[in-house]
Amino acid sequence: MQAFVMKELGEVGFAEKDKPDVGPNDARLRPTKGLVCTSDVHTVHGAIGERENLTLGHEMVGIVDAVGTEVEDFEAGDRVVVGAITPDWGSAAAQDGHSSQSNQALGGWKFANVKDGVFAEYVHVNEGDANLAHIPESVTDEEAAYVTDMMSTGFMGAENADIPVGGSVAVFAQGPVGLMATKGAALQGAGRIIAVETEPNRQELAREYGADDIVDFAEGDPVEQIMDLTDDEGVDSAIEALGRTETFEQCVKVTKPGGTISNVGYHGEGEYVNIPREEWGVGMAEKTINTGLCPGGRLRLQRLLRLLETERVDPTLMTSHEFPFEKTDEAFRLMETKEDDIIKPLINFE
Amino acid sequence: MQAFVMKELGEVGFAEKDKPDVGPNDARLRPTKGLVCTSDVHTVHGAIGERENLTLGHEMVGIVDAVGTEVEDFEAGDRVVVGAITPDWGSAAAQDGHSSQSNQALGGWKFANVKDGVFAEYVHVNEGDANLAHIPESVTDEEAAYVTDMMSTGFMGAENADIPVGGSVAVFAQGPVGLMATKGAALQGAGRIIAVETEPNRQELAREYGADDIVDFAEGDPVEQIMDLTDDEGVDSAIEALGRTETFEQCVKVTKPGGTISNVGYHGEGEYVNIPREEWGVGMAEKTINTGLCPGGRLRLQRLLRLLETERVDPTLMTSHEFPFEKTDEAFRLMETKEDDIIKPLINFE
Amino acid sequence: MQAFVMKELGEVGFAEKDKPDVGPNDARLRPTKGLVCTSDVHTVHGAIGERENLTLGHEMVGIVDAVGTEVEDFEAGDRVVVGAITPDWGSAAAQDGHSSQSNQALGGWKFANVKDGVFAEYVHVNEGDANLAHIPESVTDEEAAYVTDMMSTGFMGAENADIPVGGSVAVFAQGPVGLMATKGAALQGAGRIIAVETEPNRQELAREYGADDIVDFAEGDPVEQIMDLTDDEGVDSAIEALGRTETFEQCVKVTKPGGTISNVGYHGEGEYVNIPREEWGVGMAEKTINTGLCPGGRLRLQRLLRLLETERVDPTLMTSHEFPFEKTDEAFRLMETKEDDIIKPLINFE
Amino acid sequence: MQAFVMKELGEVGFAEKDKPDVGPNDARLRPTKGLVCTSDVHTVHGAIGERENLTLGHEMVGIVDAVGTEVEDFEAGDRVVVGAITPDWGSAAAQDGHSSQSNQALGGWKFANVKDGVFAEYVHVNEGDANLAHIPESVTDEEAAYVTDMMSTGFMGAENADIPVGGSVAVFAQGPVGLMATKGAALQGAGRIIAVETEPNRQELAREYGADDIVDFAEGDPVEQIMDLTDDEGVDSAIEALGRTETFEQCVKVTKPGGTISNVGYHGEGEYVNIPREEWGVGMAEKTINTGLCPGGRLRLQRLLRLLETERVDPTLMTSHEFPFEKTDEAFRLMETKEDDIIKPLINFE
Repeated sequence: MQAFVMKELGEVGFAEKDKPDVGPNDARLRPTKGLVCTSDVHTVHGAIGERENLTLGHEMVGIVDAVGTEVEDFEAGDRVVVGAITPDWGSAAAQDGHSSQSNQALGGWKFANVKDGVFAEYVHVNEGDANLAHIPESVTDEEAAYVTDMMSTGFMGAENADIPVGGSVAVFAQGPVGLMATKGAALQGAGRIIAVETEPNRQELAREYGADDIVDFAEGDPVEQIMDLTDDEGVDSAIEALGRTETFEQCVKVTKPGGTISNVGYHGEGEYVNIPREEWGVGMAEKTINTGLCPGGRLRLQRLLRLLETERVDPTLMTSHEFPFEKTDEAFRLMETKEDDIIKPLINFE
Repeated sequence: MQAFVMKELGEVGFAEKDKPDVGPNDARLRPTKGLVCTSDVHTVHGAIGERENLTLGHEMVGIVDAVGTEVEDFEAGDRVVVGAITPDWGSAAAQDGHSSQSNQALGGWKFANVKDGVFAEYVHVNEGDANLAHIPESVTDEEAAYVTDMMSTGFMGAENADIPVGGSVAVFAQGPVGLMATKGAALQGAGRIIAVETEPNRQELAREYGADDIVDFAEGDPVEQIMDLTDDEGVDSAIEALGRTETFEQCVKVTKPGGTISNVGYHGEGEYVNIPREEWGVGMAEKTINTGLCPGGRLRLQRLLRLLETERVDPTLMTSHEFPFEKTDEAFRLMETKEDDIIKPLINFE
Repeated sequence: MQAFVMKELGEVGFAEKDKPDVGPNDARLRPTKGLVCTSDVHTVHGAIGERENLTLGHEMVGIVDAVGTEVEDFEAGDRVVVGAITPDWGSAAAQDGHSSQSNQALGGWKFANVKDGVFAEYVHVNEGDANLAHIPESVTDEEAAYVTDMMSTGFMGAENADIPVGGSVAVFAQGPVGLMATKGAALQGAGRIIAVETEPNRQELAREYGADDIVDFAEGDPVEQIMDLTDDEGVDSAIEALGRTETFEQCVKVTKPGGTISNVGYHGEGEYVNIPREEWGVGMAEKTINTGLCPGGRLRLQRLLRLLETERVDPTLMTSHEFPFEKTDEAFRLMETKEDDIIKPLINFE
Repeated sequence: MQAFVMKELGEVGFAEKDKPDVGPNDARLRPTKGLVCTSDVHTVHGAIGERENLTLGHEMVGIVDAVGTEVEDFEAGDRVVVGAITPDWGSAAAQDGHSSQSNQALGGWKFANVKDGVFAEYVHVNEGDANLAHIPESVTDEEAAYVTDMMSTGFMGAENADIPVGGSVAVFAQGPVGLMATKGAALQGAGRIIAVETEPNRQELAREYGADDIVDFAEGDPVEQIMDLTDDEGVDSAIEALGRTETFEQCVKVTKPGGTISNVGYHGEGEYVNIPREEWGVGMAEKTINTGLCPGGRLRLQRLLRLLETERVDPTLMTSHEFPFEKTDEAFRLMETKEDDIIKPLINFE
């Protein structure tokens, strides 16, 4: 079968691979739609180290091709979505409420990390009953592709931010995850959402997803702008959706004492991420710092799909480009360069 | 000054009273708008026992008339809202996070309970700095009147229901508090909201505020209807907004194991409120039962006002009638009989 | 193999059964020590309905006899403990943090309920990697047998009671679960523990496990006694460890507004469990009612075993009798009659 | 009256001051016992900036000398304790559950910060009803002095660490706050407590307060030692009780994914406190970072006093020295140099 792979550090392309086997608890899918993620770009640039001919991609929906002997709730032909994160549900971390950390830090992240990803003709899924969900009839494949990562991760950013009803929140960066964090903040009852972003098309989408104010960091220090907007009080919650220590610092600075910083961004560089000592209240201002990796699992997927069914959110506003599977390399290059106002490129497998 | 009072059990009318004094931490207000609450009716019918010439009412906005020596943030002339619940913020219960229970069960509820209410020309407020909030310019008096109780109580119903993002929730009864619980569920990210109600005008408002499904209990057992709607799974959360043991039982029955029942309704009758033993999982199904009394306090008011500023909610859809202060008795009678499709009657003081 | 079974409603005895098979994720154990539980008695008396030749028992430790192909962390010969509750870790309820409710209310409870229990020469365990734990060398089999249910359930009672550090708690009934709830309250930092019990030997054990005050309900209304002890304030938390509606009512009555009632007792009778309306604050006093079923799973077992390793608790004080496996019927009869000051009878399989 | 003051940066001594006035909500106390805190040393060395003739000290018990007109529960002659932190209970932060941050970061900390401290013949207390507590008869003044800060702060460190029952925790540094964090971890049900300390007398006290293992950082990298002790798993929770970025980093490193870092230490130096990027899981390992400032208030004091009444903890093991009030300078110097194995010096005012 054909797979779109990272051939080695810095190099992508197509490769011929064997169709994956199916163990007793597993499932095998045939993708119909996929989305390219900036994480795929990070991976190719070395974020997780050397890999050889690793299939890329972790956001997809598809059709069940085969299931293992122990799988009860799915069968060949079912239209399903699989999470970007596919936890080991019996692991100690999962039993402790941290399924995305199963067996090791970030251990629930398997696709295009410790095993082949989803940009292939067939895809292996561990623990099928627990990691797949049926797609309701009224939900399209394209919509459903967004629950795998963008909605799950972005909404998690808002959930971890402990936003009180009517509270204020600042969301740093309005890429696809930041946009979904903005929407997530609206879904958590935020009273005021301040989106930090400089790109006009992303600013506009941020407003669509619920932002009340836009802070353009190109027009001055975002910390000052946010403190001005909040009469120097700061916000109840800040969400870091970029993954840079500068942005993280700004989050700590704009959060009021007793508030919460929710980190969603992937921090790829440097020995440290810095907490500004004074604004952190010399370690005593009760500014909680939460982090998370995209939640996976059937229940999570079902709940996010329900938000699509009842039309609480339209993630397809973020689909800026479409490509057939055989042109995944073009989608990937665009994601790498961020040219052409790209937000998310959709991959059509059929 | 004139006050609309409960003369004795079962009898209301106007009475002449002294303007209230102002202690060091207190404030005195002149009301501009008020709302009549079904609780006022309960009170007159004996819910809190005998009272003589007790001024009724607990929902109002107004102008500061005077403040005590220790009050720092408010002064005469300020346009303000005061919560229906005005806690003693130094009490043990408030220090424990339960300000509405200050000093005794329901102890934060003072207006028209342990002291005169707000349907009067002047109103006394304890702990002015902590229990008042300035009204933002863009928010009308009428809108602000809804944060005192309806929005605070209804949203609390949803907050206490621990609704997961994308979760399912059933809201029993769509009176003003139930309607705001429905809206609150939407603001908490519910994926599906099932509203139980039989009155067409309330059903329609429920849809406006976010209900996806309406269950009309006149058309059959609501438990069966909800189990049907959810493929016999039940809902993640159920909100009791009526105050009857039958409804409470239904809430326990439709909530899935591990889910939450949030009681908002005032239970006025009977020795017991009943938990159905089997559906409660013989005491082991992890169906949590939460209750609450309307949260008060400046911070709560500010956050709810923010939701009005950013137009996340329009509570004035519930204003079905208007009366001048001198006709408060007519408003009261209508609230008692529930005639004329009444939802909330607005009182204009000026 | 020999098994101690419920032959039919009301009748127990030994039966010959086949050695259980082992599926890919399963394990098979040979018990070494077991404990008889009052739940076994309830079962024989009809608590879960009719059963035929169902093997009884759910508290045991033993040696691994065989494991399925997918089991990685255990092998034949390992000394292990298995929880009384053996959840399906991939189920929606487990993904939601309610593993004991997997697939249905109380669905994690399989032994001597939906499949054969542990009083047999060989025992089948579902999801071996997730539901077994190795026993540390310094912990005896007898000690370890207590983590399966008594410690896990009793401590859960205290955890669900949300006891503040230095808070006050009343524990109703000092059977084995109540005693472990008392110990659990001490381990949660309770400042004052009031144990309700009338049997002298249980009162004495309660003191050993941390009770500061004993309320003997034979000497007067326990509610009055507890209100007297707390200057009419009531307690922060109350734990129901008996399973009667009268005791449950008393829990609600002695809990202060804003406090928590934690139900652990199995409620076996009546259509309803009653909440006293007035003391529940007419549905508004913020008295939370939590319930739970014994938590299972490898992580839980490991954490409880750690408390044995560091000698934070000695559960063997509760072992009042010992019997060889072939005399399990005598142990069972004693548990049924509660004669001879029985607390827990230990079964020796070898 | 005489007061022990910080005359200017770096210089302490006695000064004559006026007896403080008492506003309507206030109280005035005469101290009987006090304790010197390392924070006093930090203050004199410039931690909070320049101050002139600021009375030092924030840990004391005493007798009520006078109360304001609005104070209801205390009167002259009462034996009381006052928290080191005396929040403004009506403030937005207090209403939000963060009373120690009232009105600004660390705003509940008034003694020897924004007003005179407690090392004086008379002491002013804001909001007397809310910030004082009566001392039970069986509790000595010396014992009670420890609830003001050491027990409240140390236990908070453990509470913020979210230690599961039977969980593992590492406590970095065993000064008085660290020792109480160790004891607090035991009171939270920790299954294993690893105390990091190099001083033999503190190691010994740590064991008395519940430490199971001692890691001596003089004997090698504490991170390596803790990872060895935990089979490379790390701990569920780590408590930073020193206030250095190196220790904070170690806390992040030894905490397992999904675990919690609780910062209690005062961080006095540097622009940043550093989070080690990789061990923080590149911002995605769900390692929560909590911080806090000593909780104050009557309820907190009462609960901690209850732990003394029921003899759950003996804080007086930490009293290593005693001085009369007129020799507070000697106590202070010893606290500065940490000579003579000092832990806590007790000040006798009478």
